[in-house]
This record gives sequence, C-alpha cells and structure tokens, in this order.
Amino acid sequence: MDTVTDFIHLNRDRYVDELKQYLAIPSVSALPEHAGDVRQCAEWTAAEMGRVGLENVRLVDTPGNPVVCGDWLHADGAPTILFYGHYDVQPVDPLDEWESPPFEATVREGEIYARGAADDKGQVFMHLKAVEACLRETGKLPVNIKFVLEGEEEIGSVNLDAFVREHKDELAADVVVISDSPMFDRGVPSICYGLRGLTYLQIDLRGSRSDLHSGSFGGAVANPAFVLAQVLGQMKDRGGRVKVPGFYDDVRPLRDEERAEFARLPFNERRYRNELGAPKLFGERGYTTLERLWGRPTFDVNGLLSGFTGDGAKTVIPAVAMAKVSMRLVPDQDPDRIADLFEAHLRKVTPRTVELSVTRMHGGKPWMTDFDNPFVQAAGRAIEQGFGRRPVFNREGGSIPVVATFQEVLGLPSVLFGVGLPDENAHAPNEKLDLGNFHNGIVASAALYGEIGAC
Amino acid sequence: MDTVTDFIHLNRDRYVDELKQYLAIPSVSALPEHAGDVRQCAEWTAAEMGRVGLENVRLVDTPGNPVVCGDWLHADGAPTILFYGHYDVQPVDPLDEWESPPFEATVREGEIYARGAADDKGQVFMHLKAVEACLRETGKLPVNIKFVLEGEEEIGSVNLDAFVREHKDELAADVVVISDSPMFDRGVPSICYGLRGLTYLQIDLRGSRSDLHSGSFGGAVANPAFVLAQVLGQMKDRGGRVKVPGFYDDVRPLRDEERAEFARLPFNERRYRNELGAPKLFGERGYTTLERLWGRPTFDVNGLLSGFTGDGAKTVIPAVAMAKVSMRLVPDQDPDRIADLFEAHLRKVTPRTVELSVTRMHGGKPWMTDFDNPFVQAAGRAIEQGFGRRPVFNREGGSIPVVATFQEVLGLPSVLFGVGLPDENAHAPNEKLDLGNFHNGIVASAALYGEIGAC
Repeated sequence: MDTVTDFIHLNRDRYVDELKQYLAIPSVSALPEHAGDVRQCAEWTAAEMGRVGLENVRLVDTPGNPVVCGDWLHADGAPTILFYGHYDVQPVDPLDEWESPPFEATVREGEIYARGAADDKGQVFMHLKAVEACLRETGKLPVNIKFVLEGEEEIGSVNLDAFVREHKDELAADVVVISDSPMFDRGVPSICYGLRGLTYLQIDLRGSRSDLHSGSFGGAVANPAFVLAQVLGQMKDRGGRVKVPGFYDDVRPLRDEERAEFARLPFNERRYRNELGAPKLFGERGYTTLERLWGRPTFDVNGLLSGFTGDGAKTVIPAVAMAKVSMRLVPDQDPDRIADLFEAHLRKVTPRTVELSVTRMHGGKPWMTDFDNPFVQAAGRAIEQGFGRRPVFNREGGSIPVVATFQEVLGLPSVLFGVGLPDENAHAPNEKLDLGNFHNGIVASAALYGEIGAC
Repeated sequence: MDTVTDFIHLNRDRYVDELKQYLAIPSVSALPEHAGDVRQCAEWTAAEMGRVGLENVRLVDTPGNPVVCGDWLHADGAPTILFYGHYDVQPVDPLDEWESPPFEATVREGEIYARGAADDKGQVFMHLKAVEACLRETGKLPVNIKFVLEGEEEIGSVNLDAFVREHKDELAADVVVISDSPMFDRGVPSICYGLRGLTYLQIDLRGSRSDLHSGSFGGAVANPAFVLAQVLGQMKDRGGRVKVPGFYDDVRPLRDEERAEFARLPFNERRYRNELGAPKLFGERGYTTLERLWGRPTFDVNGLLSGFTGDGAKTVIPAVAMAKVSMRLVPDQDPDRIADLFEAHLRKVTPRTVELSVTRMHGGKPWMTDFDNPFVQAAGRAIEQGFGRRPVFNREGGSIPVVATFQEVLGLPSVLFGVGLPDENAHAPNEKLDLGNFHNGIVASAALYGEIGAC
C-alpha cells in the first residue's frame, strides 16, 4: 500500500490537469441541446477507463444515454465491488452567478470550481486514479471491480433500472460502492447509511385561452398564477408539516439511538445558516436540523413560471401558470404512492376555475442499510487511512435512487463512500470540490479495495 | 358632414394601408431594447400629424419618451378638445402564440391583427384620419383641437403627470377626448363614464445566497418559492375577497341605479366564458360579472418566476422567488394608500425565514364622471352618427390614469370615446381591431368634432 500511496502523492498535479479535461465536457443530461456533449463525455470516460488499465471497456446503449462499463476481474477468491457513478451533470443556470465559467475548471484556494466537480465527475475520477495507482505500482488490484457509470443520474436514472435488470448476471458482485455524496463536514469524514427518496412532479394550470388584460378582465375570471399560489400554499402548514393526507403514514420514525448520535455530531446551526446565507433556519416542528435533513420527508417548490417576468410592469392575467414540485422521502415511503396521494390532494384543492394537468417527472425510493455490515466497517477503515480520522456514521438528505435498485434487483448492500463537502454547490452555481479531499479520497479508495479484498 | 363622410368612405383602403405602416413600428415602451423604435414611432406620429393638416407639430422631450403634440386652433368661439392617446404598445410575449407576426399587420376576416391595433394606435389613427377628412373636404374643423400623444402609457405614464403640470396653460381646453377603451360589445357602442385605477408592485423574496440542492438542504431552510405561494395565497379568501386589512374602506358602493342599468345590458355569461376559454367564471361573492369588472377592486398576480423553469426536472431549492402583482381600484380608493396597506400586510404575513423586498412599479387613480355632462351627451350623438345606434353608458375595468390627472390638474371632464371590442386581446397575443368599427369610428370622430363644436 505504501508504494501505491507514494505514487498517488507524486501524481497530484497530473490528476488535477486530467480532471480539468473531464470537467470541460458539458454533459448536461437535462437539456436536449447537450445530447452530443453527453455522448462525447461517455466516450471520454471509456477512453480514460482504458488508460487506467480497466478491461472490457464498453459503452452500453440504452434508450437514453449510454452506460459506460469496464472491469478488472483477476483477484481470484476476493470479493467483487460494483462501482457505480455518473458522468452527467446538472444544468448551470443561472449562469451569471458563476464566478468562473462552469465548464472551464478553475482552481481557487485549494478548491476546483466547475459543474460536475463534486457531483459526480470528481468522485468518479478519484476511483479511476486509485485503480490506476494500484495497477501501475503493483500490477494488480486486491479486489475484483466492475465500473458502471451512467449518463442520466441527474434526470432520474430513467434507464438504469432496466439496464440493471437486463445485465443482472454481468453485474453480479458482493457490494456496491458509490462516491456521490458529501462527507459530514470539512475534516469530518463520514460513511452514509441512509438516503432519502424523491418524487418530482410538474403542475400546469390554465385559466383562459390566452393572456388577458388585467383591467378589462380582472375580477371576472380566476387568475391561474394566484390559484397556483393558493394551491401550493396549502401543501404545508405553518409548522412545516406536509398537509397531503396519508403523507406520513409510512414514515419510519427516527430511532432514539439515531437522534442521540446525530445530536453528538459537530454541527453548528449558526455557521450552517451563515454558509447558506439564510435569514433563519426553518423546518418541521419537533425536529432538529439534522433530523429534518436526514430522517424526515419534505415538500419543496423547485420552480415557478407564469405571466410577465421581464423588467417593468405588464398588466396581464396569465393564461397559464406552472410549478415544479418535489418531495424528499424517507423509509418506508414509496415514491409512486406518495405521487398518488399528492395528485389526489392537488386535484381536491384545485378549484374548477382552472384546468389542472399533472406530469410525473421522476422518483426514487429512500434507502437505509445497517452500519454494522462488514463492508461498511471496511469502508470506515479505508476512510481512516485516507483522511487520518475515523469516520462518523450518518444519513444524507439527497437521493441516489439506484441504491434501492441495487438492493432490490441484485440483492447487494451499498457503501456510500463520498468525499464531497456539504457546501460544494452540487446543484447550484459555483460547484466545487476540495482538492485535499480529492487526493485523500484517492488514497482512501485504493485502501478500500484492500480492505474489501480482505473481507 | 356628408362630404366628409363620403370622403371617409372613399378612403377606406388607404386608411388600412397607412395604419399598417404605423403598426409596423415596435414601440414597446416596457423593454429598453425598443427605445429606438419608440423614438422612431414618435417621429412617424409627428410626421403623420403634419400630413393630415395639424399645425404646430412637435416632439416634447420628457425624462422618458417624448410626447407628440400638434393642434388646429382656428375655430373661433368654438370649444377646444384636448385629444389624448398613446403611441407606445405592450410587449408581445409569448411570441409563439401569435398567429401572424405582431409587427406585420395582417387583415383576416375584417379584423387587422397587430400589437397596438386596438391599444391604442388604431384608435389614435382614427382621429387623425377624421381630422384629415374634415380639413381636406371643408378646409377647417368645427372645433379647436389639441393632440397630446404620449409614449409611456403602457409603463404607467410615468412622465405625463409632470408634462401636464408643466404645460398646463398650453393644454387649456374644454373637454378631454380619449379613444383607448373598448365598446361594450360588437354592435353595442358605448360611452364609458368610469374607470378603475391601479397599483402595481413587484415582490422579491430571498431564502439563501444561491440555489441549493433540494436533497442536501430540503427540510432545513425555508423555500422562497413556497413562501411566496403561501404569502400570495393569503391575499384573497375563497370568496374572491381581498384580505388586505383596510382594502375596502374607501370603496364607493355601486348605486342601485347602476346595478339595474348593468343588469339590463346584453351580456351573456356563457358566451363571455367561451370567448375567454375559461373553465368557469369566478369573482367576488355577491356581485355579477359586470359589477365585478366595473365597480369592484381586484388583486391579481401578473407574473411568477423562481428556480428551474426549463424542460425536465432540477432538484433545486431556489435562492429567490419573484412575483408581479397588481390591484385594480375603484372610486374612492387611492393607489398610494392601497400600496401602503398592501405592503404593510405583506410584511406582516411574510415569515422572517426569507428576505422580502417590495418595489412599487406604478399606479393610477380610479375615475368617474357624470353621464349627463353635455360633452358626454354630445359624444353619444356622434357615436349614433358613426354606428347607427345610440350608445349604452357603462363603466370599464381598465385604467387610464391620465384621466384623473386631466381632472385634477386641468379641471377637465373626459369623454371616453372607444371603438375597440372586449375580445381584441389588448395586452395578449393576437391583438386586433375590427376594421368596420375603425371606419365607423372615423365617421363618428368627425361627427364628434361637430357635436362638441356646437356645444
């Protein structure tokens, strides 16, 4: 392991240069105009897999973007890791809030800024470099490993489920490793044992055939922008609790031990609030901030659009109003059932003065594992080798829907081995990755292969 | 009068050709990128005034767009009309809903489609052609007339008030004539004796420094898009009544005679609803549709913008959320006082989890006149000469703030001599003007000069 670690330390600068090339490809899966870039990014990823020494490298076509696969399977008798990550990234708007261009990675004060730096190209690249270091220095890996990198994670992994089902035998393994989540805090590495799920919908209301003059018609017809506000406003009460009937029925309560563990974590509410630039923290009554983030479901409005939104004033009654909304889910809520409950409630509270249409965008199941699982414990030891400190065990507010798929279809536990930081703007302008964590993460990834290999 | 009328009938086609040129100038006052077009439109208007025989034609600069003035003052002993109109137009978005380009006027089935066709270029042009017909056929006008055409009506006539005050002596007259409103219905010409006022504000909420990942942060911070919905939803109750405390304090109740008169008008709710393409009519409980439109104040949301609004799904908690809102006012509500009340209520109901900023965009006072005023009666006779039918006397839901200014500063009554139709999409895509009404309106305008000249 020492020679591998030395190799990694000697190559720090090269890693950053190569990562910049990866981050330069605008693989925005949500926007059709970037389809060619997404494809190019898949090809770049495959070429890099070959360069680091993975074998059997291939693009597997799906109805959407290809999955990039590669493996190294010569550690006879050792366990097999299925490494999952994604090469697609979030859109970049609002572009004018970026301090440097989102697809020209820029290093400032030890952090690399670019769309995808943390989510997820930087963390995928960390594993590719760990594989490279092991193979260059020792000619082998201490574990078998299969890489599965998809290009649709940011649009709900719409084709991955079918991919996993179709390639069930090829994907056989002992444990899934995913590096697509932040550590608890700077200097506080962590292993995540729970994730929230998601259901995401678009609501469209129409009040009239075309926009109307608010003087000539104001008062005689419902205003769909107002109705939308009125309807959305009824989805949560003033205590931050979701008002959709049945919403909490399947929520697994937080265990006392978890609440105690969360309470022990080094979490400073004031610092957290200041970092977000929020006037005040706010969430469901009766829970701490960490409990709200990790163990409680949410309702959020992700987008609103209606009527005149330019500079100045236009006296119009909009014909239509649109909202994008989503709910983060916790075990044992089911995304489809929650979408059903939400839609039923929405249809009930929306007045018949407007036409309502609801589009289900995507969803993912919540997930939890046991933290005494041996692979989870192995990951804890590997993190300690990379970061010099034992990790804390926590849950996460985000969603990695594929974790539930791996559990269901392949029967595999997942280890969430993330080295991002909570303030890395994963879905916002100025996304970044701490380069210290990136390098420690390469060392820890190489160590992980050894620890799991010895399981 | 007969030769003037003959002249007008003989020139129908030329009038349409000329109007098309006027409508081709995209004089959108709300959008800074059209500043040059607005100026060009002012110059075209002035040139046309000269062509029809008005004298003393000039552009009077203001801090914003110029006012175009011209006059004919040789009817010794006769009253003087101050004709007010505007050469600026509304923005055209959403552009893709236009069936023909908004600045290439197109005639289909007897209607001319273009932005500004009804509001207000077409109706201004009608008077210019009436002046032309009188001067060409008789060498004189039966009345003195001063034209004042502004370029900022669609952005709240921000500089007109000062203009009127500064040019008080020059603008001295006996009556103001304005053609910037629709008639009651197709085939039902009308004289309008009341208008609603307006106060228009923009609301901006900020919840965090930048957009946040809805997984990593959802549940721990207020979502400004949700808060905006919650706050706006509290501005009206389910009965359509505005909930701002004090909002109705100064509302002059509808008189029984007015309610009876409105009830006699040929108004078909089903046809009205079908024309708007609205699933259902809706307004303040206890009032008919016409009473809601003409005699009751409103609250409307004119625009909403927050977060991700493109195709697909982005799991973001927006940093900011924006709404444009406005209230139509009736006598004796005061726009500034209502804006104060609204802002106070807004500040009270907005939680301190978000930063609130309120921008007052513009306002205008409501207005009413007596319908036994001799000029109003003269206008009724002129309409009968143009349209072959005595007009009904009604009120209007829209705002012409300058009417209140003329009352206050110049002490002048106004005659609202509008020939638009209620479905002419004044602030919406596919704005149009009925060419039959346009031609009858030229005849009626020429008749109006005679009727007022004889007062």
